[in-house]
Amino acid sequence: MSYNLLKGKKGLIFGALNEQSIAWKVAQRAVEEGAQIVLTNTPVSIRMGTINQLAQQTGSIVIPADATSVPDLENLIEKSMEHFGGKFDFILHSIGMSPNVRKGRTYDDLDYDFLAKTLDISAISFHKVIQVARKKDALNNWGSIVALTYIAAQRTLYGYNDMADAKALLESIARSFGYIYGREKQVRINTVSQSPTPTTAGSGVMGLNDLMDFADRMSPLGNATAEDCANYVLTLFSDLTRKVTMQNLYNDGGFSNMGMSARAMKTYGKGMEYRDIKHDK
Amino acid sequence: MSYNLLKGKKGLIFGALNEQSIAWKVAQRAVEEGAQIVLTNTPVSIRMGTINQLAQQTGSIVIPADATSVPDLENLIEKSMEHFGGKFDFILHSIGMSPNVRKGRTYDDLDYDFLAKTLDISAISFHKVIQVARKKDALNNWGSIVALTYIAAQRTLYGYNDMADAKALLESIARSFGYIYGREKQVRINTVSQSPTPTTAGSGVMGLNDLMDFADRMSPLGNATAEDCANYVLTLFSDLTRKVTMQNLYNDGGFSNMGMSARAMKTYGKGMEYRDIKHDK
Amino acid sequence: MSYNLLKGKKGLIFGALNEQSIAWKVAQRAVEEGAQIVLTNTPVSIRMGTINQLAQQTGSIVIPADATSVPDLENLIEKSMEHFGGKFDFILHSIGMSPNVRKGRTYDDLDYDFLAKTLDISAISFHKVIQVARKKDALNNWGSIVALTYIAAQRTLYGYNDMADAKALLESIARSFGYIYGREKQVRINTVSQSPTPTTAGSGVMGLNDLMDFADRMSPLGNATAEDCANYVLTLFSDLTRKVTMQNLYNDGGFSNMGMSARAMKTYGKGMEYRDIKHDK
Amino acid sequence: MSYNLLKGKKGLIFGALNEQSIAWKVAQRAVEEGAQIVLTNTPVSIRMGTINQLAQQTGSIVIPADATSVPDLENLIEKSMEHFGGKFDFILHSIGMSPNVRKGRTYDDLDYDFLAKTLDISAISFHKVIQVARKKDALNNWGSIVALTYIAAQRTLYGYNDMADAKALLESIARSFGYIYGREKQVRINTVSQSPTPTTAGSGVMGLNDLMDFADRMSPLGNATAEDCANYVLTLFSDLTRKVTMQNLYNDGGFSNMGMSARAMKTYGKGMEYRDIKHDK
Repeated sequence: MSYNLLKGKKGLIFGALNEQSIAWKVAQRAVEEGAQIVLTNTPVSIRMGTINQLAQQTGSIVIPADATSVPDLENLIEKSMEHFGGKFDFILHSIGMSPNVRKGRTYDDLDYDFLAKTLDISAISFHKVIQVARKKDALNNWGSIVALTYIAAQRTLYGYNDMADAKALLESIARSFGYIYGREKQVRINTVSQSPTPTTAGSGVMGLNDLMDFADRMSPLGNATAEDCANYVLTLFSDLTRKVTMQNLYNDGGFSNMGMSARAMKTYGKGMEYRDIKHDK
Repeated sequence: MSYNLLKGKKGLIFGALNEQSIAWKVAQRAVEEGAQIVLTNTPVSIRMGTINQLAQQTGSIVIPADATSVPDLENLIEKSMEHFGGKFDFILHSIGMSPNVRKGRTYDDLDYDFLAKTLDISAISFHKVIQVARKKDALNNWGSIVALTYIAAQRTLYGYNDMADAKALLESIARSFGYIYGREKQVRINTVSQSPTPTTAGSGVMGLNDLMDFADRMSPLGNATAEDCANYVLTLFSDLTRKVTMQNLYNDGGFSNMGMSARAMKTYGKGMEYRDIKHDK
Repeated sequence: MSYNLLKGKKGLIFGALNEQSIAWKVAQRAVEEGAQIVLTNTPVSIRMGTINQLAQQTGSIVIPADATSVPDLENLIEKSMEHFGGKFDFILHSIGMSPNVRKGRTYDDLDYDFLAKTLDISAISFHKVIQVARKKDALNNWGSIVALTYIAAQRTLYGYNDMADAKALLESIARSFGYIYGREKQVRINTVSQSPTPTTAGSGVMGLNDLMDFADRMSPLGNATAEDCANYVLTLFSDLTRKVTMQNLYNDGGFSNMGMSARAMKTYGKGMEYRDIKHDK
Repeated sequence: MSYNLLKGKKGLIFGALNEQSIAWKVAQRAVEEGAQIVLTNTPVSIRMGTINQLAQQTGSIVIPADATSVPDLENLIEKSMEHFGGKFDFILHSIGMSPNVRKGRTYDDLDYDFLAKTLDISAISFHKVIQVARKKDALNNWGSIVALTYIAAQRTLYGYNDMADAKALLESIARSFGYIYGREKQVRINTVSQSPTPTTAGSGVMGLNDLMDFADRMSPLGNATAEDCANYVLTLFSDLTRKVTMQNLYNDGGFSNMGMSARAMKTYGKGMEYRDIKHDK
């Protein structure tokens, strides 16, 4: 399937680790739709993952950068502009990590240096990317910036920990910078709030399998996959969504506006039976 | 417990059927807090329920009225003003009924005359009450109007049917009229979105027991009871919340901002096990 | 500009009156993107407007129908299926009218027969369209339904009157039916909340020019035009947004998430000066 | 006016600088309603302001603490428990400061060390206060924690800068910790989103006077004052709101749910006239 929806467009994609990554799918689909891209990730992620393979497949280059480092980002933007021969059109931010989650620190026992890192990596990096891009006037007018987020920013999920707060901060940055970059250069900035997705990053979250089953049964269309997400993000990079900005957009099969589905309640009801049989509260 | 929080205030309470009713508890607590009240309900509900008992307990009178009938409401407001010797201070709207639910018409097979009735009884009646009260200048400045609602207005729950749409309409009326009545007479209008509550009205909703178990385990503080709701509504009638208007306020133990709790997931996970054992999708 | 984004798709479009209509633009753009369409409107609107011209331009047919009449809708869906030779893929609902607004009845003096009509025409018609389509199994799996709405459903605007309540009801219907149609046939249902747009329908709203100026200066990207809206709606009809459902999506240049822009405040500040000079409150 | 609404309750109040402070009013009103309190602020704020005067008036003590310092907070909580002779019941967090705003760094030119400070002072301090209180088991069951916030967390206001992001983070922390503290100890955590208020802290924000005029004319009840806010916060500390948690509650005269009022539009319209006369865009 290709519509040449991004024909002539150029963009920068953060966060492709391996084939499971949403950023990976976005990169593949963007190129199928006619875009030229530059890939980036931290040196560690480049070593751990298979991004070079993606670069080959998509005829793109990889420029290493730590998205929390302003000098790294300056270098990345400059090199990208050199590679593209000028300004470009879109950016995907798909970055998130919590040392508190990794080290098993619960939300009522956070390490505050770790929290600062969670926020810096998962949210402030988004501000840094945009601020550097804007200072270098890297984006064409009517460009489009998207960051991936999760409904934990609005509703608390046990075990999601300080990533929830990081996502809330991320979404606020999208609004705050969306105003400024929009009024000046018509660059739009949105976040896409995606179904729980079995990526390497997601696998750190406690009880993800059960949660994915619940989300899938709650959502009338089931969970959105990484491929679904990629397709949706393409529409936001295209010229067909030029006046959509500062929004948090759910790509989640309907989950966000469900209170309870018959299908999820069927499983829950069985759990109630089982609980009652076992006299287990 | 009494703080004399409503000392000297007078109010009109719609929807007390029997002891389970939230309106019943609001009436009791309002009087405990020093208010004088008038009770009202439809002639049918007055016969079916025990509102006269409540009137005795609270030293109040009952004036029958069908809240969908403007002439009935005009009579009710006039009689209430006569009873109170002038203007009064607060109104509680706790009215809802869906003939589609009662007759087992599913949401994809609605009877449109029934739908018109659902909306008229459950939502438009709120507009009628306010419009009649305002035309008769029945409320003191800084008065307070509250309607009870449910989160189905924001998120779809299987089986809640066209009541969800009625509640969305009700909440919109609160905002729309809150602007007009506020700017003129400083009368505030809010809705309270309450946990699922085992009232006679609620018992028509499919699978309410399972839903209440789920809501209770999702909510960090558990479901709010009718008593909890009454206490909360009192604060909204009091002079301590004078600048709160046009809001939908959740009294639900936290449910509305939960995505998934460990406790609800434990039951759900048991349901998954059971499902897998039985090879039952 | 054409991507063949809707190649092979077929759809039904309600509400094209004349060249100003958003539905007109959607029809034109859908055909440019490879879709086949059927146009519909009430007999009165067909006479008053120029829809037959649009039919000629787009090689489509016009089937008259009053969207509040179930028999009319049954005929419309049947004729559309005959025309298309089977099921189709998308529906646009762009219908709204308030007799209260037309007759100058203010929100604190609503005529309740008029209110029932406002709701029937502007919101319940959406339910009727979907219920009839579903009963006749008219839509292919993964079909897409969109209704146009306005931010008045969330925030009160003086003069928008009972249309605000109608839009709130409309958006609720999208959620409620989105669940049911989604779980059965993967049909998604969304609403698009559009900037104030100078259409014939919009021109009835009091002070629309001033409001449009304000909205334009508040929105970092300016107001979205009818063309912008059409492009956005196309993405929602396409296969690229398959897991987006039950959402209210703002196509408004960022207005919905703005509290105050420097540009709007500049004009407001001038008004304050002027007010102070004239000693005019 | 006193209802003895907080009779027997004890609480800790952060952020009273001088008579303009909302925290000052909360402290006064809490004591009038029968509570015992402890006041706290940073050593610098204690010197700059007049908190000792408030302590005298209210028969309370002042314990200096930097709310970003965990050791300071540990000392504060311990000393407060000693003073109260055990656990206490409520906490008010009214703390916010942005070095970026103070130093005139615009949002597209943020200093990232300053941003880290903005977040630490204005949002993470809230987590630290709660985490320390919980570890020391300082609060009675059914206790109540409130933080003050502003609508900039949801909607962008020019000049509010990185404080918007800090408030979004603050509100997320209230939800995340509300879940955990609620399920364990029934402690509720909410934020109150207050009208723009002429406090010393607020005076740093660009164009606050114009914004306050706009907010006042948009809000049907006008802006909420510091006194209004204090009264509202009292209801949240009382036993009448026991099941309200994880909420962001607007005390703003209706502003949050207004799209446009006739009164604000009158001033805006004058600005449009003036603009047209002067040929000034």
